[in-house]
Amino acid sequence: MSDARSDAGSDSGPDAASDAGSGAESGAGPDHGLLTPVWAGTDVAAVTGDGAWLRAMLEAEVCLARAQARLGVVPERAAAAIAEAARPERFDVAGLARRARDAGNPVVPLVEDLRAAAGDARRWVHHGATSQDVLDTAAMLVSARARAVILPHLDRVLAALARLAAEHRGTPMAGRTLMQRAVPTTFGLKAAGWLLGCRDARDRLAAVRLPVQLGGAAGTMAGYGERALELLPLFAAETGLAEPVLPWHTSRTPVTDLAAALAAVTGALGKLAVDVILLAQSEVGEVAEPAAPGRGGSSTMAHKRNPVLATMIRSAALQAPALTQILLASRVAEHERPAGGWHAEWQPLRECLRLAGGAAETGAELTGGLEVFPGRMRQNLDELLAVLREHGEDTGAGPAPALVDRALEFHTRESRSREHHAREDG
Amino acid sequence: MSDARSDAGSDSGPDAASDAGSGAESGAGPDHGLLTPVWAGTDVAAVTGDGAWLRAMLEAEVCLARAQARLGVVPERAAAAIAEAARPERFDVAGLARRARDAGNPVVPLVEDLRAAAGDARRWVHHGATSQDVLDTAAMLVSARARAVILPHLDRVLAALARLAAEHRGTPMAGRTLMQRAVPTTFGLKAAGWLLGCRDARDRLAAVRLPVQLGGAAGTMAGYGERALELLPLFAAETGLAEPVLPWHTSRTPVTDLAAALAAVTGALGKLAVDVILLAQSEVGEVAEPAAPGRGGSSTMAHKRNPVLATMIRSAALQAPALTQILLASRVAEHERPAGGWHAEWQPLRECLRLAGGAAETGAELTGGLEVFPGRMRQNLDELLAVLREHGEDTGAGPAPALVDRALEFHTRESRSREHHAREDG
Amino acid sequence: MSDARSDAGSDSGPDAASDAGSGAESGAGPDHGLLTPVWAGTDVAAVTGDGAWLRAMLEAEVCLARAQARLGVVPERAAAAIAEAARPERFDVAGLARRARDAGNPVVPLVEDLRAAAGDARRWVHHGATSQDVLDTAAMLVSARARAVILPHLDRVLAALARLAAEHRGTPMAGRTLMQRAVPTTFGLKAAGWLLGCRDARDRLAAVRLPVQLGGAAGTMAGYGERALELLPLFAAETGLAEPVLPWHTSRTPVTDLAAALAAVTGALGKLAVDVILLAQSEVGEVAEPAAPGRGGSSTMAHKRNPVLATMIRSAALQAPALTQILLASRVAEHERPAGGWHAEWQPLRECLRLAGGAAETGAELTGGLEVFPGRMRQNLDELLAVLREHGEDTGAGPAPALVDRALEFHTRESRSREHHAREDG
Amino acid sequence: MSDARSDAGSDSGPDAASDAGSGAESGAGPDHGLLTPVWAGTDVAAVTGDGAWLRAMLEAEVCLARAQARLGVVPERAAAAIAEAARPERFDVAGLARRARDAGNPVVPLVEDLRAAAGDARRWVHHGATSQDVLDTAAMLVSARARAVILPHLDRVLAALARLAAEHRGTPMAGRTLMQRAVPTTFGLKAAGWLLGCRDARDRLAAVRLPVQLGGAAGTMAGYGERALELLPLFAAETGLAEPVLPWHTSRTPVTDLAAALAAVTGALGKLAVDVILLAQSEVGEVAEPAAPGRGGSSTMAHKRNPVLATMIRSAALQAPALTQILLASRVAEHERPAGGWHAEWQPLRECLRLAGGAAETGAELTGGLEVFPGRMRQNLDELLAVLREHGEDTGAGPAPALVDRALEFHTRESRSREHHAREDG
Repeated sequence: MSDARSDAGSDSGPDAASDAGSGAESGAGPDHGLLTPVWAGTDVAAVTGDGAWLRAMLEAEVCLARAQARLGVVPERAAAAIAEAARPERFDVAGLARRARDAGNPVVPLVEDLRAAAGDARRWVHHGATSQDVLDTAAMLVSARARAVILPHLDRVLAALARLAAEHRGTPMAGRTLMQRAVPTTFGLKAAGWLLGCRDARDRLAAVRLPVQLGGAAGTMAGYGERALELLPLFAAETGLAEPVLPWHTSRTPVTDLAAALAAVTGALGKLAVDVILLAQSEVGEVAEPAAPGRGGSSTMAHKRNPVLATMIRSAALQAPALTQILLASRVAEHERPAGGWHAEWQPLRECLRLAGGAAETGAELTGGLEVFPGRMRQNLDELLAVLREHGEDTGAGPAPALVDRALEFHTRESRSREHHAREDG
Repeated sequence: MSDARSDAGSDSGPDAASDAGSGAESGAGPDHGLLTPVWAGTDVAAVTGDGAWLRAMLEAEVCLARAQARLGVVPERAAAAIAEAARPERFDVAGLARRARDAGNPVVPLVEDLRAAAGDARRWVHHGATSQDVLDTAAMLVSARARAVILPHLDRVLAALARLAAEHRGTPMAGRTLMQRAVPTTFGLKAAGWLLGCRDARDRLAAVRLPVQLGGAAGTMAGYGERALELLPLFAAETGLAEPVLPWHTSRTPVTDLAAALAAVTGALGKLAVDVILLAQSEVGEVAEPAAPGRGGSSTMAHKRNPVLATMIRSAALQAPALTQILLASRVAEHERPAGGWHAEWQPLRECLRLAGGAAETGAELTGGLEVFPGRMRQNLDELLAVLREHGEDTGAGPAPALVDRALEFHTRESRSREHHAREDG
Repeated sequence: MSDARSDAGSDSGPDAASDAGSGAESGAGPDHGLLTPVWAGTDVAAVTGDGAWLRAMLEAEVCLARAQARLGVVPERAAAAIAEAARPERFDVAGLARRARDAGNPVVPLVEDLRAAAGDARRWVHHGATSQDVLDTAAMLVSARARAVILPHLDRVLAALARLAAEHRGTPMAGRTLMQRAVPTTFGLKAAGWLLGCRDARDRLAAVRLPVQLGGAAGTMAGYGERALELLPLFAAETGLAEPVLPWHTSRTPVTDLAAALAAVTGALGKLAVDVILLAQSEVGEVAEPAAPGRGGSSTMAHKRNPVLATMIRSAALQAPALTQILLASRVAEHERPAGGWHAEWQPLRECLRLAGGAAETGAELTGGLEVFPGRMRQNLDELLAVLREHGEDTGAGPAPALVDRALEFHTRESRSREHHAREDG
Repeated sequence: MSDARSDAGSDSGPDAASDAGSGAESGAGPDHGLLTPVWAGTDVAAVTGDGAWLRAMLEAEVCLARAQARLGVVPERAAAAIAEAARPERFDVAGLARRARDAGNPVVPLVEDLRAAAGDARRWVHHGATSQDVLDTAAMLVSARARAVILPHLDRVLAALARLAAEHRGTPMAGRTLMQRAVPTTFGLKAAGWLLGCRDARDRLAAVRLPVQLGGAAGTMAGYGERALELLPLFAAETGLAEPVLPWHTSRTPVTDLAAALAAVTGALGKLAVDVILLAQSEVGEVAEPAAPGRGGSSTMAHKRNPVLATMIRSAALQAPALTQILLASRVAEHERPAGGWHAEWQPLRECLRLAGGAAETGAELTGGLEVFPGRMRQNLDELLAVLREHGEDTGAGPAPALVDRALEFHTRESRSREHHAREDG
């Protein structure tokens, strides 16, 4: 936008701004994902909202009390009372959000409220813990749940892509480089490339270890008493999370591993999304997104069928790397708790989970119903073949089908190997 | 975190994950800013929530109808009916968020609902418009309102810093480079540096032009009829926004200018925040954040007084550049509307507004009540002076006070000049 | 890439690695831009190399001595001797680069060498200055020179785009949204959109003020003596740079303003590049890059004509925002000189200058010779019109030509206004 | 910096700009790392320069010809002639950099020159290959060599940190959170935290698989003839790189895995660097960088001893995440070769290698000679203990020493396990 009125005073906003802040209906209300259709209303949204974080923080407190009870540090009865007091519906999440400003994190007011609700057990609430123990453990719990909904969607993507690769193993089409038709390939090989990219991303996400955090005030575990080190596996067991070697207050590998894996997920899905968008162009027409009533409509143009699933996936792929970067940078964490660096992690981590989850669910829908038009592929390819013949160049797709087989074998082997491990662990 | 149990299967999450997605209380509920204390409950939060965007989108529709009525394209009565139908409280923002997935943006379902509510006027709803006209205009309305709450907070910051600079014009302290005591300076000069940084940021934000978007389906304005170009200034006048030269569907200067200015705001405030954090260190003790009941407390350590305001500001400064980058990258927008690039702008833009607004409000509180301890400054400085003397080096702060005067004069001149312009425009 | 050999030891690199580091021919030699074709060998490369920085640092020293001589602080003869000693060819840039590691910046060894070369004038070399004074001033000098070569290329881009917009004011083509044909537009309007985007970017870059840095050890100017403040305008005049209000050691507006403007340049050019890439697709064929012998060739495919200019521009647009982010984040600079944050600016700033300069020069070549195929546009449009008619939708481009006129008028007005100002200043 | 002269014409640069571009001495010369002291002259610089890339590209061509000769596709004699022709010193890297602009990558002119040098073998040069096969394989070769120099430096870091952790297992000091003294810890535990962070990063870097690229024009391997798939392991063996499942032209896992690992390296080192910087503050004085003649000097202040090693490491940690982001985003690669996305990878990847390598070498020097002052730690701690006693809080470091033991055991176990694997592979 260039300036049409060079004299206009930019200090003044629109008149409408005068009534800004006039109450809840003017925008103070909560967010429902209105600006992020890629994840609004998806499965991952259901496990990453403020309520999910509240619940996870409460669970961290409850699991800690239970582990301490198993160790004999906290009375069994107190642990039970804390569990009873920690029912999420008793807590006012909006109020906690506001009150978090006093301490810079939501755990401080949460612990106040939990103590108030715990009656005589109040002195055993948050015993020996620091805010970061609870918030980091909660972050890992939320991440574990988000992963638990993301992986099945990724598996649906993998299954659909494996099917597409097999089905179109030999379906000829034009390979395109620098957006120009280059030489023949097969649609199966394209799908196999998508498959391996998503396979890599899925495996990296599945491999991230999500540990509890338990360090106390400055990571020494001093507040946890004589038997602090014994508490670590017990707390991990209560939560279902992994046991770390050390408290990781300022050694943020779990966060950076997770961030890199989530960016791999949106990236691998973004790759197939951009290909779908390009192949679905009016002039190319080689694939179409699955049709559904109301899907892909325009607010003006009745004739349009927009590649809306791929568009949403791509919107995630364009955001996640930048958010990941915030998390990668968070490794440089001062002393035993940074002043700001830790606090800058929470929202980007959540948004990465949501973008990856939304992209995966959307990707499952996209790949599950992708329409492929071999006739159109053939037609576009024929134009390329004519040019190639004119230049006396090779016109075959060579070992493309054999490469597809190779990819499918690898995929099958890996899938089995992981199922095997999962069974062994289970 | 290093892996403690090398055999642990990482595919399996915590047991607790099994009941993920069990309903609203498990996390599907909305967000209240629980993970972003820097802006939760602040003024900017009140004008940037989903409700604020909903309202702004409705205003865009209403202003368009009114502008079209002034031009005689839409019946006056229809415009009035649309205004009547467009009351935000009638709309289900959570439902719209979910339904946005069908078209990839929330305008499509909103227009459906608005048409349903508009009775006979339904055919004049969204007349000639495209989703992007409404959403981009709404984004500018929200940005204008956010700016209208951010600038006064920045002005409070400027006033407080000017006062600190003047008051401590000659208060000697150690200047520090690469975190080592270097040579003497004055606290006033430090405050003057903060002042100019924030002044620059404030002026850049104030200078960003926020235009309406009005292009129709592909930016030709064809749907707006014969007198489309006349509609542009009328629509701008109705909204209070600026008039663009051309539709800016894929020429995103307003977004990138705004993003850069918001990063300047969090950056300038982040600079003073990090200095406060460093000066407030236990071993330095030269400043302290304003005390308030419950502020800066720890969940474990009664003795601590954390620099929590500065910490929250810094958390914003660590996030905004990465979000800004998403917006800077959005300039590369394909054809007449990108498939994903536009969609990737909305949430980062909102978060930048919120981070800047939260940081500004927090910064006003921080600078307004900052405690300065000249005695401690003197004490730390004396240690430096002893070293300097030992090395035969200069021990004065030189023209530091004169530099403070220079900065204050500049600040006063600029403030007057802007007030003057603001009056002229008003 | 997925793992084909699950048993392969990844700790071991290729055998070839054994002879790594065997001397200059193994890679210790300097860089010539081999990995960045977008700027290798372009005009901006000629003013941003290590040699250019060396020269600019020496100029900063010379200009400082001269300014101090004008003030009577340094003997005229010493200033002349320093100028004589400061001939760039005397200095070993590779050696300085290595020796920079001792102090963390290249100014410290440079000053050593300059003193050694200055004979009796040695005590007046770098008098009162700190490394940052010299390096920041050098950065601004290099930036000014880079800008001086970038702006003319941008002006060539603007001229070419204005011509394309005028020439194709009414050339009908399909407008495309979400990569689907949407409604008719004109190629002139597309070019006008490119024009305004580049116009905005050009004007923002031209408007960035580039000041000298002059603060001494900790920004108090104490080392510059009694008349330090008088030195500021004299130093600015000697260098041709602007005069700052205060030393900006840790108030980095010049750097962030510049970074944002450079990202605007690569972004605006990236927008037109991506459109050219899409329009030049084999299946679309509406434009082609200017042909040149050897240009756009493939190492394998004789038939291909790759959109290589647009590809290189896009490679710049994909890098600049991330580099800009490093610079935006550098605003959070601790105390009077950050330990790392300042040092992290230098290379990203240079790379932003190079990417913008390379993209601008490449863009001038691309837009200056862009081939436009109205016949193919018509053909693609006809397919769209058939669909629109089928759906009873509007088939005109409406006021697209009038919008082109509007953009050209704005462009002409702005160009004249800037020429006028430039003359006045000159 | 705020504007001192509001009337100054910013379009005009410094007068000095008029002679820009006047030849090599004005800046067109090559780069030696003048702006990046963190890696200038270090081991990694010796294997990542333009010359190293040139050599690696030539090796890719030679290895390909040899592999094809083993398969009988290329005559043995031709392969030998190509190897003979491919001596790096014959090639003009600066000229190749400039000529790369015609095709958008340096392989095209390189192949021209190699063919010219290969005599009768010219028709077998680059047989069946595409530019990306050569450049991607070269990138992996360079990465492997860079890793081969980075890992030993990281191992030196690990050894030094393990020693520090053991030695100071029980050395009491103040733990600090949000930059305030919090509770006691031990310096050994702090070092153990650094150790595990660097351990994680080292292991992630070592684990990245670096495969050859071999896809031909569009990833089908068609140009490699009937036995193309057999060529894959032979080419891998010749280069010493891993064998991929599929060509990864647009499935960029190797690049993103590497990027994430390199950011982990700079991040883990950045964590210890920032702690050193903070602990070395004049007012804290608990550690000091290893002294060396000329190290840490200032250009103005004789008394200063700057933490220059840590500062350089931090400068790397502040840049790498943003560069990593470019690489993470490169996953979204269109079709069979993106127009720009691939080209945007090369320089950021190299810079990540250099930053990680420079940081690792600098980190080895820093940790190897870090001076620790238990007396000063005690003194600072005593002030904290006084406060804690006043508040009746716990004053012990609890199981900090036991945690150190736990970390050291883990480290030893992991080291042995990796050595074991390395022996097995070797």
